[in-house]
Amino acid sequence: MSDSPLTHFDSAGQAHMVDVGAKAESSRLARAAGSISMQAETLALIRDGSAKKGDVLGVARIAAIQAAKRTGELIPLCHPIALTRVSVEFTIDADAPVVHCEVTAECSGRTGVEMEALTAATVGLLTIYDMCKAVDRGMRIDNVRLLEKMGGKSGHWQAP
Amino acid sequence: MSDSPLTHFDSAGQAHMVDVGAKAESSRLARAAGSISMQAETLALIRDGSAKKGDVLGVARIAAIQAAKRTGELIPLCHPIALTRVSVEFTIDADAPVVHCEVTAECSGRTGVEMEALTAATVGLLTIYDMCKAVDRGMRIDNVRLLEKMGGKSGHWQAP
Amino acid sequence: MSDSPLTHFDSAGQAHMVDVGAKAESSRLARAAGSISMQAETLALIRDGSAKKGDVLGVARIAAIQAAKRTGELIPLCHPIALTRVSVEFTIDADAPVVHCEVTAECSGRTGVEMEALTAATVGLLTIYDMCKAVDRGMRIDNVRLLEKMGGKSGHWQAP
Amino acid sequence: MSDSPLTHFDSAGQAHMVDVGAKAESSRLARAAGSISMQAETLALIRDGSAKKGDVLGVARIAAIQAAKRTGELIPLCHPIALTRVSVEFTIDADAPVVHCEVTAECSGRTGVEMEALTAATVGLLTIYDMCKAVDRGMRIDNVRLLEKMGGKSGHWQAP
Amino acid sequence: MSDSPLTHFDSAGQAHMVDVGAKAESSRLARAAGSISMQAETLALIRDGSAKKGDVLGVARIAAIQAAKRTGELIPLCHPIALTRVSVEFTIDADAPVVHCEVTAECSGRTGVEMEALTAATVGLLTIYDMCKAVDRGMRIDNVRLLEKMGGKSGHWQAP
Amino acid sequence: MSDSPLTHFDSAGQAHMVDVGAKAESSRLARAAGSISMQAETLALIRDGSAKKGDVLGVARIAAIQAAKRTGELIPLCHPIALTRVSVEFTIDADAPVVHCEVTAECSGRTGVEMEALTAATVGLLTIYDMCKAVDRGMRIDNVRLLEKMGGKSGHWQAP
Repeated sequence: MSDSPLTHFDSAGQAHMVDVGAKAESSRLARAAGSISMQAETLALIRDGSAKKGDVLGVARIAAIQAAKRTGELIPLCHPIALTRVSVEFTIDADAPVVHCEVTAECSGRTGVEMEALTAATVGLLTIYDMCKAVDRGMRIDNVRLLEKMGGKSGHWQAP
Repeated sequence: MSDSPLTHFDSAGQAHMVDVGAKAESSRLARAAGSISMQAETLALIRDGSAKKGDVLGVARIAAIQAAKRTGELIPLCHPIALTRVSVEFTIDADAPVVHCEVTAECSGRTGVEMEALTAATVGLLTIYDMCKAVDRGMRIDNVRLLEKMGGKSGHWQAP
Repeated sequence: MSDSPLTHFDSAGQAHMVDVGAKAESSRLARAAGSISMQAETLALIRDGSAKKGDVLGVARIAAIQAAKRTGELIPLCHPIALTRVSVEFTIDADAPVVHCEVTAECSGRTGVEMEALTAATVGLLTIYDMCKAVDRGMRIDNVRLLEKMGGKSGHWQAP
Repeated sequence: MSDSPLTHFDSAGQAHMVDVGAKAESSRLARAAGSISMQAETLALIRDGSAKKGDVLGVARIAAIQAAKRTGELIPLCHPIALTRVSVEFTIDADAPVVHCEVTAECSGRTGVEMEALTAATVGLLTIYDMCKAVDRGMRIDNVRLLEKMGGKSGHWQAP
Repeated sequence: MSDSPLTHFDSAGQAHMVDVGAKAESSRLARAAGSISMQAETLALIRDGSAKKGDVLGVARIAAIQAAKRTGELIPLCHPIALTRVSVEFTIDADAPVVHCEVTAECSGRTGVEMEALTAATVGLLTIYDMCKAVDRGMRIDNVRLLEKMGGKSGHWQAP
Repeated sequence: MSDSPLTHFDSAGQAHMVDVGAKAESSRLARAAGSISMQAETLALIRDGSAKKGDVLGVARIAAIQAAKRTGELIPLCHPIALTRVSVEFTIDADAPVVHCEVTAECSGRTGVEMEALTAATVGLLTIYDMCKAVDRGMRIDNVRLLEKMGGKSGHWQAP
C-alpha cells in the first residue's frame, strides 16, 4: 500500500489514516511507562499528600485515564478506538528521587493500543508536573517507552 | 488559601482550580523541550521524508500546536488560556540519533503557559513515535522539561 | 479483581477503567429521567415558544443528544461507547409547573449505557435552565434517576 | 434585540448566541449546588473510600472541575469563558443519607458563570452515580440549583 | 517574521500559530455565507418541517453556533477565541431551489473571526445535508465565502 | 418509525439519533469532494509551498483527517463511528485556478460514512482558506458533494 516503510504515508508521500478495515478484530494490549524526576522535597510532598492532604497521584491517574480515551483526537493519524480497559500504576522511588508511571491499555479491535498507553502515561506525568511546579520547576520526564504489546498480526513484542 | 506548598490543593487537601482572578494580565512566555531517541535507520527515514515523501515532522508540528490549545482539557487543574503564539522547532541530531523538539508558547493572561509548552512538546514527540512505530517500536522520549518562563509575579526563570 | 464492592477501584483502592474485554457484546438499553421546576410564567414561555418563537425544548433536545455522545469524556471512568440510538422526550406538566425529560439510549456493546442516558437527561435540563435563566433564576433540577436498564449479564432492572 | 423575554432567541424566534460584546468585563462569581441520595450502605462505602481505598469524591471533584471548563461545548448557547477559579465541596449527610455538592466558579468577563457552576455540580454528582452504580442503581440526583450570583449588570442575586 | 506572504509559515517554511500578542484588542466582526442546493421536494420538506414536524433549520442553526465555538480545534493554526456573539440566518429560495446560510460572528480580541463565521456556515450546511440525505443524496454545498470583515489593523473589508 | 421521509425526526417531528441497532455491520465507504477557487497568485504560493517552504496542503490534509474523526461531535444527529480509513487527495488545477479536495472514508459498522467524508473535505478546504486568507480574502468553496457510497442496505450509489 505504501512504498515507504512508514505506513502512515501513501506511495506519494501523503499522510493518511491507514486502512485497517481488512484486519480481524482481536484482543489487543499495550503496556507503556515513563518517569518524572524531581527534588527529594517534592517527592516527599507527593508521598505525604497521597496519605492525607493533596492526592497528586490520584489526580494524575484520572488525567491519564481520560487522556487515553482522547488519543485519537491528539495523535493525527491514530484510529479512534473503543478501549475496554485502562489502568495506571504509580511507583515512588524515594532514592532517585523519581515517580514511575506504568499504564496498561486494552481493546478488542483492528489496531493496537500502543499510542493510548503512551499518551496516558505522558499526560499522567505532565499532570504531576503541573501540580508540583509551584515548588519545583526543574522536574523532568524521561524514559517514556513501550514495554509490551500483544495481539494483532505482529503478535507479541516486549522491550528488550 | 492553602497550607500545602502545593497550591492546587486547598487547606483541606482537596484539589481545586486555583483562583487567579486577582492576578494582573501580563505577557507570558514559556519554552519547553524534549527528545525522542531511535535507531539510525529510523532517523534517516524521517530526514528523507521531510525532503520529499512522508513529512513526519510536519505532521508532528501540527499535532503539537493543536495539543497546546487543548491543554486545559487534558491537565485537570489547568486554567483555560487564550494562547497568542505557539511555535515548534524540531532539530535532528543524526549522531545520537535523536530528534529534539522545542516549543515556545505565549499568552497575555493571568497564569503561565508552561503546561501548554510542555504538552505541545510531548504530543509532538508522541506523534513521531506513532508515525515511525511500524519500523521502530523501541523509540524513547526523554528529557521533557521546562527551559524558560517569563512574565507574571514570579518573573523570569531559566533552567539551570 | 477488586476487594471493594465499588468496581471502579482495584484492590489497592486505585481508580481504573474496568476491564470489559471479556464481556460479550449484547444489545443494551437504558432509560433515565429528570425534571426541572420553574415559575408558571416561565413554563408558559416554553410552551408558547415551542409553537412559534423560541423553541427551548428543541434546542435542549439537541444538547441532550450531543451530550450522550460525549459521556466518556465527561465521566472519568466510563468506557467510550458507540451509541446506536438516543431519543429524548420532554413532557410539560403545567400544574406543577415542571418540564420532565426522559432519555432512551441504546448500544450494542460490552458495557451498559446508563451514564449516557443520565448525562443526556441532565444536559437537556441544564440547557432549559440556560435558556430561561434571564427570567427565572430559581429553577431547580430534581429527580434525575435511572428508570430501566436492559442487556448485559445483570439483565433487566427497573426502578421500583 | 429580542421581543421575547427569553434572550437566547432573536425577534424571529431563532436561537442565537447573544451579543455580549458591549458588556464591560467584570468579576463574576456563581455558586451552585445539588445532592445525590442513596442507600446508607452506599454512603458508608463512599465515606470509607475517602479515607483509604477508593476515593469516590476525589474522582468526582476532578470530573466536576473539568466539566466546568467544557460548559461552552455542552450548553449550545453559552459563551466560551476563561474561568479563573473552580472549587468543589462535597458534604456527607449520613442521616439522609445524601452527598451534597457545592461548586463556586469565577471569571473576569462579559457574561456570568452560572452555567459553569451548575454543569460542574451536575457532572460531579453523575460521577458519584457512575462509581457506585454497581451496588446501588436507585441513587437519585435532586435539588440542583443556583445559590448565588455576583457581578455584571444584574448585580447580586441569592436564592431565597 | 516570515519571508513568505503566507503568514502561517515562518521563514523556514514551518507552520506556526502566528504571534498576535502585540496586537491590540479590538471589536471584530465577520460575516460569511454559503448555500446548499437540492431537489424541490427536499426543500419543500424543510420548509414544511420548520412549521411543525421536523425543524431541520433549527437543528442546523444549533450545529452552526456550536461549531463556531470549536473552530480553534478544527483549523490547526487558528487562535482560540472568546466569541461574544454568533447568529445564523437561513433563507429559503424555493425557485433555485436552495437554502442560503449567513453567519455573523463577533469577538473582542487580537485576531479576526473570519474562520469562526466560515466554519459555522459550513457546519450548518453540512447538518442540513445530514438531515435530508435519506431523501436526496445529490445535495451540493456552494458559494461558501467571506462577506465582510471589520476590526483589527486591516480594517473594513467587503466582498466585491 | 417515522411518518416523515426525513428519518432524523420521529413521528412527532422531534429530532432523534435514529436507531441503527438492528442493522448489520458491513463494510462501508464514502467518497466526497469539494473545491476552493482563488487568485492565480495564491495558487502559485500553494504550489511552491508544497515543494519547499510552507506546505499548505500538508497542513490541510491533517486537518481533514482529524475532522473526520470528530464528525459525530459536529453534526448533531450523527452516530459515533470507528473509522477504519481516511485518505485525502488534493489536486491543483492551475487554469481555473482551483484546488480540488477528494476524501475517502471507510468503516465497518451499522451506518454510513458520508458525513465523515463530507466533513473532512470541508474542513480541509477551510484550512486552505485560513492559511491563505492573509493574501486572498475572496477565496470561495464550491461543489461540496458526495461522489459515491458503498455498503449498507441501500447499496451502491454514485453521483450522476
